Amino acid sequence: MMPPDPGGNATDQVDRLIALLAKLPGMGRRSARRAALKLLRDPAGLMLPLADAMRATAEAVRPCRICGNLDTQDPCRICTDPNRDQETICVVEGVADLWALERARVHRGLYHVLGGVLSALAGVGPDDLRVESLLARVRAGDTREVILALPATVDGATTAHYLHDRLRPSGTAVTRLAQGVPMGGALDVMDDGTLAAALKARRPA
Amino acid sequence: MMPPDPGGNATDQVDRLIALLAKLPGMGRRSARRAALKLLRDPAGLMLPLADAMRATAEAVRPCRICGNLDTQDPCRICTDPNRDQETICVVEGVADLWALERARVHRGLYHVLGGVLSALAGVGPDDLRVESLLARVRAGDTREVILALPATVDGATTAHYLHDRLRPSGTAVTRLAQGVPMGGALDVMDDGTLAAALKARRPA
Repeated sequence: MMPPDPGGNATDQVDRLIALLAKLPGMGRRSARRAALKLLRDPAGLMLPLADAMRATAEAVRPCRICGNLDTQDPCRICTDPNRDQETICVVEGVADLWALERARVHRGLYHVLGGVLSALAGVGPDDLRVESLLARVRAGDTREVILALPATVDGATTAHYLHDRLRPSGTAVTRLAQGVPMGGALDVMDDGTLAAALKARRPA
Repeated sequence: MMPPDPGGNATDQVDRLIALLAKLPGMGRRSARRAALKLLRDPAGLMLPLADAMRATAEAVRPCRICGNLDTQDPCRICTDPNRDQETICVVEGVADLWALERARVHRGLYHVLGGVLSALAGVGPDDLRVESLLARVRAGDTREVILALPATVDGATTAHYLHDRLRPSGTAVTRLAQGVPMGGALDVMDDGTLAAALKARRPA
């Protein structure tokens, strides 16, 4: 008899693979099945290399003790890079945001990964975020400016306010990302909040 | 200096993981980055189990020598199941279609996975498909009916015609899936081909 498994395929092993693949962001049960089939069709060229890459990465990559970035070395390559501006710290919600800023090559200073934003709804308080280590870094010395690159949401704004308050005694300059219409953005598809922020922050042409 | 890598993160290892994840169906560079981050956030709970599941599956799962299904045993669990109807073979394009039919629990006979359909454009000829092994199975004996469950496309129809011709000498009944409006399908969103097929194949109410 075929075991009555929900995947409809005969092997527990493949079912387990599909269940794990389905946990990846953007993957549903259906796309996980397609991914599993693609892997099964090319074990030597894709499935084993991917398994090895995951194992190697899981064993090698650690959060940086200074900024929270993920890297194979600790402190990370950004914190130990003497060519970066040591006096500016850009505070981000997560590593994805740090990567996005690095891809854009717009920030030549250091980073600090908060690990989230304050959220009453999700029950995230200051103790759940890497706030104390940020204050310790700023207190320790050379920081001239802290750039709050937090999401343009209510929780992001709350977190920015909170950090601004906590950083005030240090006397360090605290700045935020500008808000407005994104590059290439058509006005008629922007939400009201973006239009209001863009109009309020208008500059001489 | 930060190495000038396209992913923007500092590690070759993570870049390699992202590049491999991006090869999965439905994954772009962006979703592969999100998947890599999710894996990095939970090495013990997700990344290592997934790596192990892939390695175990790659080592254990093989195509069935009889029908082409993928299973940890060869011949597969369907071919060796004495409770299945041994006289009916359902011919499918790929293992994904076999899984879909098994999930629906609508076919209690055997299968034959062609491994594709004939395609002049993609240069797929009869020798590229598991046609001879299908004919050999039918010639060998008990088969009473071959159900062609091929895609309702031009290539699928060409392949069905070709197989029908090749199977004719055996005297075995050859049938095809019905075409029509799918369950729950609203008429006004159906394409013309589906509406034409459904009207042509109309039945007494």
